[in-house]
Amino acid sequence: MSKLTDVPKRILIGRALRSEKLGETLLPKRIALPVFASDPLSSVAYAPGEVLLVLSIAGVSAYHFSPWIAAAVVVLMFTVVASYRQNVRAYPSGGGDYEVANTNLGPKAGLTVASALLVDYVLTVAVSISSGVENLGSAIPFVVEHKVFCAVGIIVLLTLMNLRGVKESGKLFAIPTYVFVTGVFILITWGAFKGIVLDETMRAPTADYEIKPEHEGLAGFALLFLLLRAFSSGCAALTGVEAISNGVPAFRKPKSRNAATTLLLMGALAVTMFCGIIGLAMATDVKMAEFPAKDLIADGVPVGPDYVQNPVISQVAAAVFGDGTFFFVLLAAATALVLFLAANTAYNGFPLLGSILAQDRYLPRQLHTRGDRLAFSNGIVLLAGAAILLVWLYGADSTKLIQLYIVGVFVSFTLSQTGMVRHWNRHLKTERNKAKRRHMIRSRAINTFGAFFTGLVLVVVLATKFTHGAWVALLGMVIFYGTMTAIRRHYDRVAEEIAAPDEPGDESVRPTRVRAIVLVSKVHRPTLRAVAYAKAMRFDRLEAISISVDPAETKALQKEWERRGINVPLKILDSPYREITRPVIEYVKGLRTENPRDVVSVVIPEYVVGHWYEHFLHNQSALRLKGRLLFTPGVMVTSVPYQLVSSEAAKQRARKRQEWNAPGSVRRGPVDRRPKEPSGKA
Amino acid sequence: MSKLTDVPKRILIGRALRSEKLGETLLPKRIALPVFASDPLSSVAYAPGEVLLVLSIAGVSAYHFSPWIAAAVVVLMFTVVASYRQNVRAYPSGGGDYEVANTNLGPKAGLTVASALLVDYVLTVAVSISSGVENLGSAIPFVVEHKVFCAVGIIVLLTLMNLRGVKESGKLFAIPTYVFVTGVFILITWGAFKGIVLDETMRAPTADYEIKPEHEGLAGFALLFLLLRAFSSGCAALTGVEAISNGVPAFRKPKSRNAATTLLLMGALAVTMFCGIIGLAMATDVKMAEFPAKDLIADGVPVGPDYVQNPVISQVAAAVFGDGTFFFVLLAAATALVLFLAANTAYNGFPLLGSILAQDRYLPRQLHTRGDRLAFSNGIVLLAGAAILLVWLYGADSTKLIQLYIVGVFVSFTLSQTGMVRHWNRHLKTERNKAKRRHMIRSRAINTFGAFFTGLVLVVVLATKFTHGAWVALLGMVIFYGTMTAIRRHYDRVAEEIAAPDEPGDESVRPTRVRAIVLVSKVHRPTLRAVAYAKAMRFDRLEAISISVDPAETKALQKEWERRGINVPLKILDSPYREITRPVIEYVKGLRTENPRDVVSVVIPEYVVGHWYEHFLHNQSALRLKGRLLFTPGVMVTSVPYQLVSSEAAKQRARKRQEWNAPGSVRRGPVDRRPKEPSGKA
Repeated sequence: MSKLTDVPKRILIGRALRSEKLGETLLPKRIALPVFASDPLSSVAYAPGEVLLVLSIAGVSAYHFSPWIAAAVVVLMFTVVASYRQNVRAYPSGGGDYEVANTNLGPKAGLTVASALLVDYVLTVAVSISSGVENLGSAIPFVVEHKVFCAVGIIVLLTLMNLRGVKESGKLFAIPTYVFVTGVFILITWGAFKGIVLDETMRAPTADYEIKPEHEGLAGFALLFLLLRAFSSGCAALTGVEAISNGVPAFRKPKSRNAATTLLLMGALAVTMFCGIIGLAMATDVKMAEFPAKDLIADGVPVGPDYVQNPVISQVAAAVFGDGTFFFVLLAAATALVLFLAANTAYNGFPLLGSILAQDRYLPRQLHTRGDRLAFSNGIVLLAGAAILLVWLYGADSTKLIQLYIVGVFVSFTLSQTGMVRHWNRHLKTERNKAKRRHMIRSRAINTFGAFFTGLVLVVVLATKFTHGAWVALLGMVIFYGTMTAIRRHYDRVAEEIAAPDEPGDESVRPTRVRAIVLVSKVHRPTLRAVAYAKAMRFDRLEAISISVDPAETKALQKEWERRGINVPLKILDSPYREITRPVIEYVKGLRTENPRDVVSVVIPEYVVGHWYEHFLHNQSALRLKGRLLFTPGVMVTSVPYQLVSSEAAKQRARKRQEWNAPGSVRRGPVDRRPKEPSGKA
Repeated sequence: MSKLTDVPKRILIGRALRSEKLGETLLPKRIALPVFASDPLSSVAYAPGEVLLVLSIAGVSAYHFSPWIAAAVVVLMFTVVASYRQNVRAYPSGGGDYEVANTNLGPKAGLTVASALLVDYVLTVAVSISSGVENLGSAIPFVVEHKVFCAVGIIVLLTLMNLRGVKESGKLFAIPTYVFVTGVFILITWGAFKGIVLDETMRAPTADYEIKPEHEGLAGFALLFLLLRAFSSGCAALTGVEAISNGVPAFRKPKSRNAATTLLLMGALAVTMFCGIIGLAMATDVKMAEFPAKDLIADGVPVGPDYVQNPVISQVAAAVFGDGTFFFVLLAAATALVLFLAANTAYNGFPLLGSILAQDRYLPRQLHTRGDRLAFSNGIVLLAGAAILLVWLYGADSTKLIQLYIVGVFVSFTLSQTGMVRHWNRHLKTERNKAKRRHMIRSRAINTFGAFFTGLVLVVVLATKFTHGAWVALLGMVIFYGTMTAIRRHYDRVAEEIAAPDEPGDESVRPTRVRAIVLVSKVHRPTLRAVAYAKAMRFDRLEAISISVDPAETKALQKEWERRGINVPLKILDSPYREITRPVIEYVKGLRTENPRDVVSVVIPEYVVGHWYEHFLHNQSALRLKGRLLFTPGVMVTSVPYQLVSSEAAKQRARKRQEWNAPGSVRRGPVDRRPKEPSGKA
């Protein structure tokens, strides 16, 4: 897209290059779909299995409820998709659930959503990687035999890739996602064709197994509870639906409409795949048990702890394509890859949400700078650490991890949809245009139903899963919420403390004089530079100070000082305990006591080095002294740097770091869309 | 010792209190002995066992060589003691082996000794703790069953105590050491009395066991080699003898003579205990095997891997006092305690040696400050980490660890004694006084013999133990040597780079003008203070700079700036990517390009906070900006601190930290004995 005529312009403007480039990366729908949908689409790799697994508690007979549960999931999916289509239209800025809840329901709701989303990102990594490992393991047994090791290894790999800053491209997402979707559709179509047209019998590897029910003959309320629990597990298919609402700015124009269309497309694909796989599982007699070791019976005996329960999608693929065939392996690989991509989306979302929260002072301010490498790294490492901890604690078992997963999603769904209802109410108060009002009322109805339905699901999820692990997710949310509240409170307190008073306070009174002290240890280039700079500043008084820790060295210093005729008085401070800090602090305090309205400027020559280990070898006492001096009122500290030859290396590194691109920039869209103030005003 | 008349003086002089106190802590011989001798005296807890254990390789019959080996150890001990009595007299400054080798044999020899000593300190901790755990385990089986865990636990405990800065007192050392020494003497006397006078038969717990020789019927060279190996192990009794030569300044006057007497006393005690225990072991038929599990035979079958081989001293105590009796338990406890104290001496010696090495620029300069808490902590943590690693790798097995131990000691013995020979040679060249010359010639003869004998032992140790683990110690020495050489080379290179040229260079040329920039984000107290200070400095030009990351905030800032009538021009720098650093750097570079002979002073308001976690919340972008600015030539950076209320907490902590006493001060003596220059000269 870069035309020849652009070249001179680029050479002239230089930096404009970057925003040009960003303009080019706006996503067409066919690329936006895989970029945003790898998370919800990949969940068909585990959601169907979870439904069967819960139903099996009441025995195989309960499997015939699975179409009903699938239907409920489909209804829920379309409700959520319809709701988020309203979000996307109302908030094209890509603020997502946090912005919606924060704006419409107040900061507490916003913070709750943020906590839920942060927990959710961690679980997206943990669940997707674990499930990916299980899917890969159905083709490569080694992987599933060393499940935790492999899962942690892949998390570490993803982390390193993201820290390194791999440049993301739409294609990276598109190819595996489309291979996966196509693969699943071929699987469903071919399976249906074989079953219905050819009337072949397809048998899953577990077709001949029996299931020992944990609770035989459940009925009434107990059965209802079980069905609700199975439904809750099936809701895992909905995770990640909200991703598009964060990414509207990355779409091509008309942004909102394209985003809404993509959302619908994604919902349709997800439910079709979900239902297709459940259908095939029923047709091929897949058996899944919550505790396969004791409840799955092969030839009258339990299969035992060595048995590996493969995911439904892989069992179905084995039945339709045949175990170990090319198509089987290809589908397993594509499934695993899409799941790893889904995990990767959390690596982008987590720091992005962090930067938005930092903007609102719920997280350390330095995270605010968007795309900043250091800030980004902190987020990445925190996310990876938490995910590794969960994977390790739960033995990379996707079934166990899913129990934690869905709480956060539905907390943010419910609050976001409730926020949307408020949004429309507010706008309806002022809107007079009839057509627009009608549109708004329709949107409000959709969001109201969405809020009600997702709220209901949240209650169901909490009721059925609380003891199974949902409490861990809630605990995580409480920790995030508490930490962020504390940080915000700290910032508020500091802001109050440092607020400028209306009448000129102590701070704006200009001190009468500035006395300067140059710290000297030896006569060398850094010292000479510091003295020259200090002289250039024309302080009211200037003297050089040296701490005597070795009488011989001090004597040599004094001699050299005189020999060179440096016309700044050199004062020697005695230090019987070889301390550097204390004598200087005491001297400075003494100066202040003599003339309390003076300020003291301490000038410190500093070495600038190039390698991390050199920091251990230089500037340590200067740094420590500086740290102590800053506690003394009426003192300022000036560092006069001396660049050692080796510092060139660090400069190069810093430059390279500036060229770094934060991963996930594709899905975030261009950086700043707000109107700019005229700048450069003096 | 503090008299009533001292009180007014103390109130008047205040700080002199510290040197007063140090004066009072000079050690009388009866306290100096336990303070310095816990290491060599405690080695009788493991050295006799090691001798028997090696001999057992040739079968029980080889045990009758043990008196000869004991005799050789005694001769060696007196040689070393006699040699070090010369050191103590010649170097009363307490420089120790490093100083002697460095001064007389050159820096390479000095650095070799230093590396050997550093390795040795690590091994003192590892061996003493492991042996202590084994001794304690003979009374409390739990301890020896969880050997590694207990050993690591005790190392961690000692580390925390030393990091915390427990005030050492002579008594702390005196009581356990004297209990131990008395206990061992009672053991020996009572054993001899029972055996010789009462003619009772005392049987060690292992008296009835048999030993399967690893190599039956060794003779000729092979036997000699084995005897030499046994002797090498016995030499473990000599570790720590050099400690007194580092501690001369801590003695009461006449320092050198008192130190020499203490040295002799220590040697006499150590050999008596060593020989006594070997003698009792023979009399009570103690059996020790290198691999007890397979080579120790009870009733015709090997004792197997669950058998715990108790130390000789505890087996002898069981024979003489009876297993589990009060005296038995008391001796085991005292032995363990003295061994832990011995380990603790390394915690004092390691950082002290580090500070001396830092003075010679072989280690980072900040370690130089003696008794500085941070420097001290680094040394402690390094020592503990290395010791824990060894204990863990070798399963807290003192027998295996001792194979590594003796190399370092004898490297420093040999080089130190060789250095002393050179010392006397040099002095003999100039000394004319007959009596003094005679004295020197005698000293030289002693040191020559010492150098020769310890050198011979070093060769024996290397030859007999190299493959058994001595190579690890050598590797450690090479690593220390290489690191320290590299550090020294770095410092030398930097010193050359920054050496002041004789004609005035770039550094001493006074820049024509200083342009100042105050960085502003909001109008609050820290900013107002920074602006007021900057104004007071009367720069040639002063302007305020703000980075626009949010147009609304920028607008508000400009308004507030005008409203308050701050008469410093405010310039807004545009930052489309919300970066802070880059626009400032580019602006500053621009200023420099316009007027290359100007320097730019960047004034940054900084928050001073009180808790470590607050650092994550403040100053991060200022710090990063500062880091980058220092790479730009012709720039200096001034921090204007604003002390938040919470900073008071940190100030209190810093004050408390200053009152902290480095452990080991008792054994180091008063700090500065060199003549002082008159100070306070302007």
